[in-house]
Amino acid sequence: MPTDFLDLLHASLPPGAVSTTEADRRAHACDNSRLNALPDAVVFPTEHAQVEALVRACRAHRVPLTARGGGTSSTGASVPMAGGVVANFMRMDRILRIDPDNRLAVVEPGVTNEALQQALAPHGFFWAPDPGSAPWCTVGGNLACNASGPHAVKYGSTRDNVLGLRAVAGNGEGFRCGTQTTKSAIGYDLTRLLVGSEGTLALITEATLKLTPKPLAVRTLRATYRDTAAAVRAVARIMAQPATPCALEFMDALALKLAREHQPEAGVPAAEALLMIELDGAPDALDGAVAAVESAARVEGLVQLEVARDEAQTRALWAARKALSFAQRAATQHKINEDVVVPVSRLPELVDGVRQLAARHAVPIVSFGHAGNGNLHVNLLPRDVDEIERAHAALPELFALVIALDGTISGEHGIGVVKREFMPLALPATTLDLMRGIKAAFDPDGILNPGKLLP
Amino acid sequence: MPTDFLDLLHASLPPGAVSTTEADRRAHACDNSRLNALPDAVVFPTEHAQVEALVRACRAHRVPLTARGGGTSSTGASVPMAGGVVANFMRMDRILRIDPDNRLAVVEPGVTNEALQQALAPHGFFWAPDPGSAPWCTVGGNLACNASGPHAVKYGSTRDNVLGLRAVAGNGEGFRCGTQTTKSAIGYDLTRLLVGSEGTLALITEATLKLTPKPLAVRTLRATYRDTAAAVRAVARIMAQPATPCALEFMDALALKLAREHQPEAGVPAAEALLMIELDGAPDALDGAVAAVESAARVEGLVQLEVARDEAQTRALWAARKALSFAQRAATQHKINEDVVVPVSRLPELVDGVRQLAARHAVPIVSFGHAGNGNLHVNLLPRDVDEIERAHAALPELFALVIALDGTISGEHGIGVVKREFMPLALPATTLDLMRGIKAAFDPDGILNPGKLLP
Repeated sequence: MPTDFLDLLHASLPPGAVSTTEADRRAHACDNSRLNALPDAVVFPTEHAQVEALVRACRAHRVPLTARGGGTSSTGASVPMAGGVVANFMRMDRILRIDPDNRLAVVEPGVTNEALQQALAPHGFFWAPDPGSAPWCTVGGNLACNASGPHAVKYGSTRDNVLGLRAVAGNGEGFRCGTQTTKSAIGYDLTRLLVGSEGTLALITEATLKLTPKPLAVRTLRATYRDTAAAVRAVARIMAQPATPCALEFMDALALKLAREHQPEAGVPAAEALLMIELDGAPDALDGAVAAVESAARVEGLVQLEVARDEAQTRALWAARKALSFAQRAATQHKINEDVVVPVSRLPELVDGVRQLAARHAVPIVSFGHAGNGNLHVNLLPRDVDEIERAHAALPELFALVIALDGTISGEHGIGVVKREFMPLALPATTLDLMRGIKAAFDPDGILNPGKLLP
Repeated sequence: MPTDFLDLLHASLPPGAVSTTEADRRAHACDNSRLNALPDAVVFPTEHAQVEALVRACRAHRVPLTARGGGTSSTGASVPMAGGVVANFMRMDRILRIDPDNRLAVVEPGVTNEALQQALAPHGFFWAPDPGSAPWCTVGGNLACNASGPHAVKYGSTRDNVLGLRAVAGNGEGFRCGTQTTKSAIGYDLTRLLVGSEGTLALITEATLKLTPKPLAVRTLRATYRDTAAAVRAVARIMAQPATPCALEFMDALALKLAREHQPEAGVPAAEALLMIELDGAPDALDGAVAAVESAARVEGLVQLEVARDEAQTRALWAARKALSFAQRAATQHKINEDVVVPVSRLPELVDGVRQLAARHAVPIVSFGHAGNGNLHVNLLPRDVDEIERAHAALPELFALVIALDGTISGEHGIGVVKREFMPLALPATTLDLMRGIKAAFDPDGILNPGKLLP
């Protein structure tokens, strides 16, 4: 890293904003993937103008620049593969405005998802994206990766819940896009273009988020099925009627077995397939909604359907799903975390295909997750060096299966480094070329997060 | 138009697909704006490959190419300002697939919005965008302009209701973007970038649309208020509670007066401000929702609140809103149709500002429309040459007012020709430059719909 670049950084940014200590560099070398690459410097901006100065300095010296929030990405999206500077946004964590009348909040990117939800709760609102990493991940990271979670089935992903952005493009120019209104038709939608662009087009410095009023009540159901096909028939029937659940989660036989063995006291049913169904709404509306969903869930092959009568029963029903996370961690240190997505009606073929894949490559694979969106976490759980090798050999076949089922390779984790080589499977060359054209328009010197997303 | 270009067109497209007759050219010279420009030729493609051939021919000869559906745009978006070719998509009107299990439909762009809704109804679904021009406008036009309508307040605009597209970029390359799934995180969102791009980036040849289950029941309320401020306080309160209406429409005093005078028998109330509120959902859930909305609507300044008990009463309540369209047409042939949008809480300032504008420029202006989204149709109704001139003089002040209120210049009609010069009011120069960069990446020779959207 040239001295004149570092001098420029120190001159453009306030004292304490630039660090080249070994400790800071090491702390910004990895995320929740297994990738690791040391940056040459770490910058902690506290306001938009500093981000402009930073991008301009990096551009002038052709230094790679990688944005980072909580570092919870599982794809390597925030690992500085080409070295250079990591911009850590955690000091830009202010909630600038909560505006219930207009159903919006204006925030800096470094606020954590959970801190935002806690600030919104007294106003009777929430922000829809609810990734499992909510206590640690930032809104900026959610925007960069188009994060979501179980409630996306009713409330949408990050992309569906943002109105406008302020950002600095790779060319060093600050800009605003989108609106403070819930409707607009004023040219190209740069806001939703930036969502999911994984820091390769621009660094987001402020976001105007769309809020949703908190439902007044929630009801939980759990259903087990003779086989996956039956469970998925139920999913399709549930999604084809108007009482859309706010969560519709699936666990396959191996997921249930792992959870049961790891936590025998959690009451995890021994079944081939399980659905967790959550409904929300006004209290007087929920009986009807539960009845409608219950009726849709009662397909040939249903084994048992339970409706929680109180909070204790609700907790008991969710225990199986909660136990699974710990069970996977206990099963192996080498979990490969995938999040493929297929049209809901193709889920049986996906789950069957994954089972065959597990048998063919002799590696344990669990399938579970957001069935209402057709978005399953297909987690490979290799336990030793041989299984790790076989698991990696199975991955291209998993992605090919998903594409053959009209699905795609990521529902909510994004591409980063780990899925980059698979992008040509998911998208035609002409589409990737258009994406490269957009990249060049925003970041003509390719300084922003090089080596990510686009092959 | 060079002969060798016409020869190439005839050679690349089937017999009957290319017309240079005076009648066809005249029929494609205008839309629902007052603009008029004669194309040199009209092409009626029937499949994707023909659109590729057409774009390539136009690119090779640098001939302007303007896509057109039903021609209902009020902004001149489909008027061929630079001549060249108009591509009329009305012969690509097939509904290729209706897939209730996956809540999606695959259609060609030339199908009308209404024909699609009729095909979906027996499956228990609808497509959310519901512009007033639904019987004539096409899905392709809805996508191009990010159209919506009264139900966007609950179900979103076109952009929120599309999953994937097939298209031909201005560079002549066909591509697919998006997915057949309700979630994805695979790079830049070209799908939502094309929505609202008004045919300046690519021509859409197929769309995968997100469907919504039809609600089982609907209830209608009508409330009148002492003044606009009171009505808008009610709007903000209604939008801040979880029972989101499926329509929340506003009419100002002049709109009510026009409707009343034009159709005395319609029972239009003499009031300063009126709200039409529609709620949908499961029948047993509606009592609670109506009660919640009724309570939110009862603010200081409420004059009267009526709840329709049956279909006849529902029709009677909507009669005022229906009468308004005819009343405006009867009032003048020279209506200037605007659709500005502000944050809901700024609506009183907008309506007051419009009233001052009308007084200052001595031209009648009615304000009404989609209050739940802060999206008002501010229609200037000049009756003679002098008033027309004064109306046009008032427009820049209207847009400046909207921007000062944190709003923007179009909610659902788009930019086209008529608002193009006002784009720098709505967006910073850096943002417009990024849009131009995207335009260059898709359409390097600038053949697609020149003179539209970007100043």
